[in-house]
Amino acid sequence: MKALVAIDSFKGSFSSAEAAAIVAQVFRQYGIDSTGVTLADGGEGTSEAFLANQRGGRWEYAMVHDPCGRLIKAKYAFVPDERVAMIDAAMASGIQSVKTDVGFVNPVMTSSAGTGELIMAASRQGATKIIVGLGGTGTTDAGIGLMGALGAKLYDSYNQLLPANISSINLIDHIDLSEIATKRLQLVACTDVDGPLTGTAGAVQMFGPQKGLTDANLKDFERRFQHFAQQVDPINQGQLAGDGAAGGMGFALRLLGASVVPGFQMMSDVAQLADKIAATDVVITGEGQLDHQSLHGKLPVQVAQIARRFHKPCLCVAGSIQLTPSEVHAAGFTTALSLIQQVTDLERAIREGKQNLRLLMDRVAPLLLLLESKNV
Amino acid sequence: MKALVAIDSFKGSFSSAEAAAIVAQVFRQYGIDSTGVTLADGGEGTSEAFLANQRGGRWEYAMVHDPCGRLIKAKYAFVPDERVAMIDAAMASGIQSVKTDVGFVNPVMTSSAGTGELIMAASRQGATKIIVGLGGTGTTDAGIGLMGALGAKLYDSYNQLLPANISSINLIDHIDLSEIATKRLQLVACTDVDGPLTGTAGAVQMFGPQKGLTDANLKDFERRFQHFAQQVDPINQGQLAGDGAAGGMGFALRLLGASVVPGFQMMSDVAQLADKIAATDVVITGEGQLDHQSLHGKLPVQVAQIARRFHKPCLCVAGSIQLTPSEVHAAGFTTALSLIQQVTDLERAIREGKQNLRLLMDRVAPLLLLLESKNV
Repeated sequence: MKALVAIDSFKGSFSSAEAAAIVAQVFRQYGIDSTGVTLADGGEGTSEAFLANQRGGRWEYAMVHDPCGRLIKAKYAFVPDERVAMIDAAMASGIQSVKTDVGFVNPVMTSSAGTGELIMAASRQGATKIIVGLGGTGTTDAGIGLMGALGAKLYDSYNQLLPANISSINLIDHIDLSEIATKRLQLVACTDVDGPLTGTAGAVQMFGPQKGLTDANLKDFERRFQHFAQQVDPINQGQLAGDGAAGGMGFALRLLGASVVPGFQMMSDVAQLADKIAATDVVITGEGQLDHQSLHGKLPVQVAQIARRFHKPCLCVAGSIQLTPSEVHAAGFTTALSLIQQVTDLERAIREGKQNLRLLMDRVAPLLLLLESKNV
Repeated sequence: MKALVAIDSFKGSFSSAEAAAIVAQVFRQYGIDSTGVTLADGGEGTSEAFLANQRGGRWEYAMVHDPCGRLIKAKYAFVPDERVAMIDAAMASGIQSVKTDVGFVNPVMTSSAGTGELIMAASRQGATKIIVGLGGTGTTDAGIGLMGALGAKLYDSYNQLLPANISSINLIDHIDLSEIATKRLQLVACTDVDGPLTGTAGAVQMFGPQKGLTDANLKDFERRFQHFAQQVDPINQGQLAGDGAAGGMGFALRLLGASVVPGFQMMSDVAQLADKIAATDVVITGEGQLDHQSLHGKLPVQVAQIARRFHKPCLCVAGSIQLTPSEVHAAGFTTALSLIQQVTDLERAIREGKQNLRLLMDRVAPLLLLLESKNV
């Protein structure tokens, strides 16, 4: 019997790789072959997952500006043989940099330039294909900082050069991309959300508030973003899926020639997930909380969809299951079981996550073996 | 796919019959045929389970004396066609009668006579075979009250008739059973414990304290029980398995000619459990708490042993699982899963027991169906 393990990280309990190791360790005792696949969906940790699926990859480091303009040391994944780099935008422009003890840094003061600098660093290192994961960022600057760092020139209607930051946004008339540094690079933007740049599901209204936009500047930002999109993207006007990712970095990267792909799709291709699922007997997936958000394309549900395509049973393990059994089934899982198997509180459940996963796998493995004995 | 459900009651949550009904209801939605078997182990509820497995059985009622000599209405199961009755000793001599707000009734004042009276009532009703379940009683009188109620005569060494109660115990020299009312009856004593009358695993030392025996009278009782056993049972001296059941009623019934059988064995025979397990695809059993006590022959483990004999997968569901996965396996279960599947406290877990059982079965059923699809 062969099991494929593709479990998302359980925040505060264990990482995706730790989960796979625990399952493999337990299953081995039952004679079940277990292969772990490290996946990610474009959010934080995507470059780590990318590295785990590559031979000869390594971390590279560069000094870049964080959203507040402070120099920080940021890392990205680099695979020399293939001249490919994978960058998490969160490494340079992460949300942790814009949070203070008393609240958020004023969004007007923050910039995505650091992510552009990291792309430059990877290019100088020799990368010809650069993948950018767009989750976990703290900026809402429509990617203007990133554009500037890569050599885009922003002009007003008098053809005067503007500083490449959010304060210029309502003055921008056109952009000159003739001298951008990424011209000969293959750029890929990995999104973990599919919202457009503007509108209710966009970078400002949907994601602005969690990055410090207040009711006071939300309308102002939205209006300026709309103006910007009309000026520099007259055909699509920032309405393509993923344009709203990372406060508009998705939009900026697309303008710079990047192909925009859902993060899970990119990572599952890198990890050859479909081939691995086709060759296994059972799929184990999971995440901290299985709820209605999960149904909107979160990792375990994406895994389950592929498992269903290949008619493989797919078991979801979760700390908390908010879906009904029929919703669980409709999502593509054979079933879902909770790590929690006794009276406990939330804090303890998180603290004991690893041993609960171990115990649950110990309870599930004999059931999987039944499948095999029937098979004989 | 066919499932056999033999789940013990979950105290405070649901009865054995309710559990079977819940499982059947859920499984039906998945096309799994589910048969419930009501079992018991000689403890409280055994007559109810007995009745559930008989055609044409009914409750009969009789006025009897409770352990403290108060007249109460007690019931027993009666199957007219087969002239068989099943009595729970707890109905006439239950532990609830010897508990007060401030502690226990003095054990010297309590008597098992009521159980004898219930046997008499069943006999008058026409029963020729009377099964007595010995769990849940509150008396520790070596069954002397019961003997007296059935016509046994107790004499001292001067051949003087003694009152048939515990206060006579150290004066008893011999018993006259020539005129007992149960002579032509087939008596069966069902025990849920296999301890002897005396000794550390006996009626006094092991079970006396939970019925009100204090440190002060424990030694005294033990000594008198030993004397009694030597006088009236010189060969076995009260050391046979089950003699210690129900404060010594097991011993008394044996002296009166009863065959003593473990309750689970009797009930599983009545319910034709082995035949039913042989004809099923999977067995579902369970109890409130699966722990080391369970390993000493409690209902789910006995069910699992039979399932293993017939090579049937056996799933144990429990509110709380105190055994390790390997202990669970060694006990005969394929695996055990907890009803608890989320962060919760004990009170809520008990209150939500029924819906948790329903939910767990909803999560397990799809896994069982996998077995079937492999089978095709």
